[in-house]
Amino acid sequence: MSDTLCVFEWRYGSEEMRRLFSRENIVKTYKRVELALLEALAETGIAPIEAVEQLRSVLDTVTAEDVYTEEKRIKHDIASLVFLLARKAGGEAAKWVHFGATSYDIVDTAWALILRDALAIVKGRLAAVIEKLSSLASEYSRLPMVGRTHGQHAVPVTLGFKFANYVYEFARSYERLCELEKRLLRVKLGGAVGTMASWGGKGFIVRRKFAEKLGLEPHIISTQVAPRDGFAELAAVAAILASQLDRFAFEVRELSRPEIMEVWEERGGTVGSSAMPQKRNPVTAERISGIARFIRSLMPGFMENIVLWHERDLSNSSFERIALPHLLLALDQALADMLALLEKLRFSPENMKKNLYLGWGTVVAEKLMNMLIERGLTREEAYKLSQKAAARALAEKRPLWQVAAEMHEVSKRIDEKTLEKELVPEKYVGPVERLVEDAVRYAVQVVERC
Amino acid sequence: MSDTLCVFEWRYGSEEMRRLFSRENIVKTYKRVELALLEALAETGIAPIEAVEQLRSVLDTVTAEDVYTEEKRIKHDIASLVFLLARKAGGEAAKWVHFGATSYDIVDTAWALILRDALAIVKGRLAAVIEKLSSLASEYSRLPMVGRTHGQHAVPVTLGFKFANYVYEFARSYERLCELEKRLLRVKLGGAVGTMASWGGKGFIVRRKFAEKLGLEPHIISTQVAPRDGFAELAAVAAILASQLDRFAFEVRELSRPEIMEVWEERGGTVGSSAMPQKRNPVTAERISGIARFIRSLMPGFMENIVLWHERDLSNSSFERIALPHLLLALDQALADMLALLEKLRFSPENMKKNLYLGWGTVVAEKLMNMLIERGLTREEAYKLSQKAAARALAEKRPLWQVAAEMHEVSKRIDEKTLEKELVPEKYVGPVERLVEDAVRYAVQVVERC
Amino acid sequence: MSDTLCVFEWRYGSEEMRRLFSRENIVKTYKRVELALLEALAETGIAPIEAVEQLRSVLDTVTAEDVYTEEKRIKHDIASLVFLLARKAGGEAAKWVHFGATSYDIVDTAWALILRDALAIVKGRLAAVIEKLSSLASEYSRLPMVGRTHGQHAVPVTLGFKFANYVYEFARSYERLCELEKRLLRVKLGGAVGTMASWGGKGFIVRRKFAEKLGLEPHIISTQVAPRDGFAELAAVAAILASQLDRFAFEVRELSRPEIMEVWEERGGTVGSSAMPQKRNPVTAERISGIARFIRSLMPGFMENIVLWHERDLSNSSFERIALPHLLLALDQALADMLALLEKLRFSPENMKKNLYLGWGTVVAEKLMNMLIERGLTREEAYKLSQKAAARALAEKRPLWQVAAEMHEVSKRIDEKTLEKELVPEKYVGPVERLVEDAVRYAVQVVERC
Amino acid sequence: MSDTLCVFEWRYGSEEMRRLFSRENIVKTYKRVELALLEALAETGIAPIEAVEQLRSVLDTVTAEDVYTEEKRIKHDIASLVFLLARKAGGEAAKWVHFGATSYDIVDTAWALILRDALAIVKGRLAAVIEKLSSLASEYSRLPMVGRTHGQHAVPVTLGFKFANYVYEFARSYERLCELEKRLLRVKLGGAVGTMASWGGKGFIVRRKFAEKLGLEPHIISTQVAPRDGFAELAAVAAILASQLDRFAFEVRELSRPEIMEVWEERGGTVGSSAMPQKRNPVTAERISGIARFIRSLMPGFMENIVLWHERDLSNSSFERIALPHLLLALDQALADMLALLEKLRFSPENMKKNLYLGWGTVVAEKLMNMLIERGLTREEAYKLSQKAAARALAEKRPLWQVAAEMHEVSKRIDEKTLEKELVPEKYVGPVERLVEDAVRYAVQVVERC
Repeated sequence: MSDTLCVFEWRYGSEEMRRLFSRENIVKTYKRVELALLEALAETGIAPIEAVEQLRSVLDTVTAEDVYTEEKRIKHDIASLVFLLARKAGGEAAKWVHFGATSYDIVDTAWALILRDALAIVKGRLAAVIEKLSSLASEYSRLPMVGRTHGQHAVPVTLGFKFANYVYEFARSYERLCELEKRLLRVKLGGAVGTMASWGGKGFIVRRKFAEKLGLEPHIISTQVAPRDGFAELAAVAAILASQLDRFAFEVRELSRPEIMEVWEERGGTVGSSAMPQKRNPVTAERISGIARFIRSLMPGFMENIVLWHERDLSNSSFERIALPHLLLALDQALADMLALLEKLRFSPENMKKNLYLGWGTVVAEKLMNMLIERGLTREEAYKLSQKAAARALAEKRPLWQVAAEMHEVSKRIDEKTLEKELVPEKYVGPVERLVEDAVRYAVQVVERC
Repeated sequence: MSDTLCVFEWRYGSEEMRRLFSRENIVKTYKRVELALLEALAETGIAPIEAVEQLRSVLDTVTAEDVYTEEKRIKHDIASLVFLLARKAGGEAAKWVHFGATSYDIVDTAWALILRDALAIVKGRLAAVIEKLSSLASEYSRLPMVGRTHGQHAVPVTLGFKFANYVYEFARSYERLCELEKRLLRVKLGGAVGTMASWGGKGFIVRRKFAEKLGLEPHIISTQVAPRDGFAELAAVAAILASQLDRFAFEVRELSRPEIMEVWEERGGTVGSSAMPQKRNPVTAERISGIARFIRSLMPGFMENIVLWHERDLSNSSFERIALPHLLLALDQALADMLALLEKLRFSPENMKKNLYLGWGTVVAEKLMNMLIERGLTREEAYKLSQKAAARALAEKRPLWQVAAEMHEVSKRIDEKTLEKELVPEKYVGPVERLVEDAVRYAVQVVERC
Repeated sequence: MSDTLCVFEWRYGSEEMRRLFSRENIVKTYKRVELALLEALAETGIAPIEAVEQLRSVLDTVTAEDVYTEEKRIKHDIASLVFLLARKAGGEAAKWVHFGATSYDIVDTAWALILRDALAIVKGRLAAVIEKLSSLASEYSRLPMVGRTHGQHAVPVTLGFKFANYVYEFARSYERLCELEKRLLRVKLGGAVGTMASWGGKGFIVRRKFAEKLGLEPHIISTQVAPRDGFAELAAVAAILASQLDRFAFEVRELSRPEIMEVWEERGGTVGSSAMPQKRNPVTAERISGIARFIRSLMPGFMENIVLWHERDLSNSSFERIALPHLLLALDQALADMLALLEKLRFSPENMKKNLYLGWGTVVAEKLMNMLIERGLTREEAYKLSQKAAARALAEKRPLWQVAAEMHEVSKRIDEKTLEKELVPEKYVGPVERLVEDAVRYAVQVVERC
Repeated sequence: MSDTLCVFEWRYGSEEMRRLFSRENIVKTYKRVELALLEALAETGIAPIEAVEQLRSVLDTVTAEDVYTEEKRIKHDIASLVFLLARKAGGEAAKWVHFGATSYDIVDTAWALILRDALAIVKGRLAAVIEKLSSLASEYSRLPMVGRTHGQHAVPVTLGFKFANYVYEFARSYERLCELEKRLLRVKLGGAVGTMASWGGKGFIVRRKFAEKLGLEPHIISTQVAPRDGFAELAAVAAILASQLDRFAFEVRELSRPEIMEVWEERGGTVGSSAMPQKRNPVTAERISGIARFIRSLMPGFMENIVLWHERDLSNSSFERIALPHLLLALDQALADMLALLEKLRFSPENMKKNLYLGWGTVVAEKLMNMLIERGLTREEAYKLSQKAAARALAEKRPLWQVAAEMHEVSKRIDEKTLEKELVPEKYVGPVERLVEDAVRYAVQVVERC
């Protein structure tokens, strides 16, 4: 494959996902849909029953190659397929194949079937991500580290608490994927402009049988095409999920800085940069960030596609031919990278502790403030006093509790023992274990429910 | 208001929606949230009960003006509010107001409350749009007009069928809005980095009481801020809805071309263009298209906001201060315009009929093809024959049925009478009444369900 | 190629452009850059002169296949290439190949070289578009048709005038492409973080020689990578150009509506829709619109890439591997489609005339207003009078001049003869020939200048 | 102003920029353009000369308030203005004001004038940013710090070198702004659809005089509106610049992490977070990042605006009314923040040194590799050896030069003295002073040239 130009052909994406969007599988799915239609027509009494067998027997003999060769001549892919099938099958099939349908009855239904498979892969990977993260969250629910806001040290958290937030966030995406499916994964059958005009009064029965055979609900109504808001929602849900993956990747990339080095991705036997042998680059995480950028980028086009003219225009076609496979392949790669990243994550409790204490205990200045309030100070007084103590601790490079104990305004309210005992970063993490449990339980329910 | 620069201050958006995002209402909501927090703290036994009354009694005396004046000094809006409240209230309130909370416990909860009101307006308007469109769909379910694909005449539809497709599409958006709410409209309470550290073991009770008072579920877990995927989903759902409005607006703009003139928006006493007195410009529909463009544009920023650092960074703040009010105001205006547009839509059955027959009946060429298949031709033969007939009808400017009747390959299979009777555009519209009913019923169920 | 998934591998894009972004050409360009670097090192006296020949002699023996196979092992493409080259070449080349360079010295310089070729294709196609449009503009500079604003009939234009506007707009894009090149097409050489540390004081000479060999200016300074604003600008300029192509495509799609049918794209022997034999679908124009949507979509990711960490992070890499080839291939296809579209454009002066007179001459109501002003009425009086005349003409379906002549307020100022003579749509087109000439001359100058 | 909803009314943006986009200034500019047009008409002999004075004398008496009140009645802002002016002025002005023009002759020309002023502010601020950064780059051109790629320590740089890269990048944006101006800042005059039909043969002279009076070149040709690619380019150039500002902000935010603390923004008397008194939040830099996100977001809408129908449709209008002022105000704020940030930047050479040595000298492993190559090893051998030494230095926490000196494969080629002398991070920064000089000189030239 050394002459390809698209990196999703070989570099990014799994073979499993790639196969779904291959020309072979697309044409195979078109054929499956044509067969389902003819079966529905036959069962409804529109087409004779023998047409089905005639069509079925030749399905395998028409290849993607055949279709796209024919398309070069007549400039229409579904028309090419239908002509080829009809010619090969002959007999009744040559009359009744595709009867009453429009090309996008086939195309949109095929997209629904392919996307059903693609979303099954996506959901499977996302569930695995959630499971692995949940297990890490539980395992490390008591491992303290500094919480950071604005990149600054704020208040202690635990590694498990940090992960549990991602569990919650990813579960929200999983929920969105499930809710999206009922709008996106629908067969579409309505003929030229959606009125079912070709099938007389039998259109609803044909559509019902067609839908049953393919295992999906039909769109309630449509123009020549299914409404494009379904694809736009898919793009948006994918963009949100990709951005969440990006957020996690960002977390890892930052925490693996040599000055921090709390979390990092273990390198295998990779070379790293060609010129700097000493580095430990978070390349998997960085790739997630880059691919997330691509996924985010596709949204505007999908939104514009909603605005089709009247009963449809063709402008969605080229965009979707390009964007749908690339979107799913990119999501596939980002999720696979996420799973790989989780497998090779490594943690340093020592560095977490070191950083937690870097600010001489000022990460529990809030605790000091609270203690002062509890002992009668107003919020403002307590705030200023604890700020002063924190500033002094940093300036003098001594523990906050020591400095506080020396301040009269503090010591007359809280004795040194108590300060030493309470102003301990590791202890100021709140009920994180239950928060972790709740997040994990929530995620389990979401995944089970849909 | 002649010195404003933002057109949402006066030109676009309703007073009702504008009020929600006014500085007064934002600060008022902050105060309401601070009070709910203090009540929860008191009921949990953390704060003394009298603090609540002390705070409540001064709430009205601290204005938005006060807060933003103070903010100029200390550069933090919530801190300003809290200091002002504490100073005014004194007593126990001065100690316990905001106890254990972080600014974004207030801000994110306030956003949830304001957005609850904003989405109620949005959903109300959207339900009205759906209802009006449903009624038009039913009223005109049998009014035939040409269906258009690629801008070309395809196969007949009815005006009601056309509208019913929009009913279905808007109902899908309504459903998305409802599903979004359970993820977006949640109170957030967790303290500095979300660990509830300040409240000892009582955090969950405080959060539960806080949530109950405000009538919303809490986020299961959070960092310093609620996860930003909720806002991103809001932006995406809004963008999809706006694009659907744009699609309807586009439909009206096109159908009101003088060459088509099937549907148009009645002009009131407007001047129209300053130089061309004769024109009937679809200015309401055009404004919908323009505003949809703005709504679509805001998505990427909301997606980027998901990728906050660790337990949060501040980069979401300025973006959301700008984008959230503008997004909702824009959606508000687009929906109000849509309602106005629906009120002033006018239809010309005459022009619909004229256009339906413009192609000399070739819009039922598909029917001819189907009839030929039913009489034994293969799809390909029938296709070519009907195409030939259609070409001849157009060339000779004579009805398709006449031309077809003169073609031996046709006439030997179908007699002239039958052709004349069957090849009637108005009759070839399929079971559109049931399709309309189904779409309307679907929409009613969606709106009722949530 | 029946197992590909990316439509740019076969369906969209020219072979010429595809070749540029093939794996073979990318690796070939990397090798060319490595050779130029070694030559520069040798000429500067850093590497011995024989190293160059040693490297050159093995260049052809290392293929893309080799590189990407090796990459699977060591996870780095440029490192793989360098190791393979060094091993094959041995001798001095094995020491000095890539000396002092970082991977992105090679990658970014290779992008510059490949994009130079790609932009040459783009500019060639765009120049051809401009030339063809200019020739159409000149040819039809006097062919009158109705000008449309809001989709409504406004005031007459000519077909050539219409085209001349596109000539101007495309010329502006051509100018942007030229200006962009001086920022984008630069070699980049600076070593690991851009400081040229490996080459002692000789870095500037090495860079100068390197740049000369490749025929491009160097970036003045860089981090590990060239600044990403160059790619972002490319994406933006491409998006603007694509949107202009979309605008033209939109024009054609609209004007080929059966109710209008002034301009259309001739269909060859295509099948068109599978169910509606009578249609003349503007499929080339529609594809331009769809592909423009894809091109527009890529901007946000390129913008985000600007924000690389410190001396760089890797997140741009995967995005650019995906987006750069797809962007250029998509632009290539859109321009090829535009050229094809221009070749098969057909015009109907009859329909233009018919539509021009559709409003009974109200398209020259402005002229009537002007004549009344010239005869002493205020703007407001003249406006109201001409509006009244226009409304009556439309209502009574009689020519504006006739109706006006019967209005006392008009006739007492302008006699019927004059009205009949002046209120002729074809005459009210202004100095369009000179406008066309100016636009064409402007475009010629832009194309010649750069 | 406590009832506003748009934060650009008070929170973000300078008074200077805000004034430009105020309703008063917009209407004032419209009036200025109407006057220029009437002057041009008079000088061309179309209107009598006294009309000019009549108009001029009433200009100040028509306010924005008047116009927008009238607009509520007749639904058209320019028409309202023209009617009000005509009524107030009476006489010849009542006839000739706005003669032959279309509303967008006024609107687009007014945008050009306002944007000229707005871009002058933007360029002024950007030049100040470049100047300040240049001065910092020169001042600190020899202050060593570690260069970072992937967030990992790579190879040394200097602070001045780091800043010089930004100087170069911002200069590229300055250049783009200048090149953009010649396409964007043009008057537009062509009448209803751009054909100049109202002015007979005198249109070109009217346009030339009109343009001269306003000090801008005219568009060569136009439809009813100026081509929208100019605004799209503005949005793109702004998005690129905003992303560069974001990159700098990101740099500061990262380098001010407590574990790094090399660069930070000094806080004034701000409160910081309400709950964490100890923090030093980079809030100015974070706001730049947030606002950059907003600026980037506006691009897609501006691109869509290019695709206007035929001689124009109105969909650009509402979008531009919203987006143009917000875009410029946001850019204004981001640049003001950048200037403020540069003023309060503080540096810690101590921490830079500490971090530079954090990896025990492995940041000069490349230097070791180069030395080995210069002494006869192949690249691969040298790479592996230096990598081994680096790994050992990190593992044993001893300087690279010491560890290397103990490795036989190294010591037999390079003596310990040389290793100790050469493997010094501070020395391995290349010719950065000249790189800094070149970048600064380049920027000076760009700013001077345009």
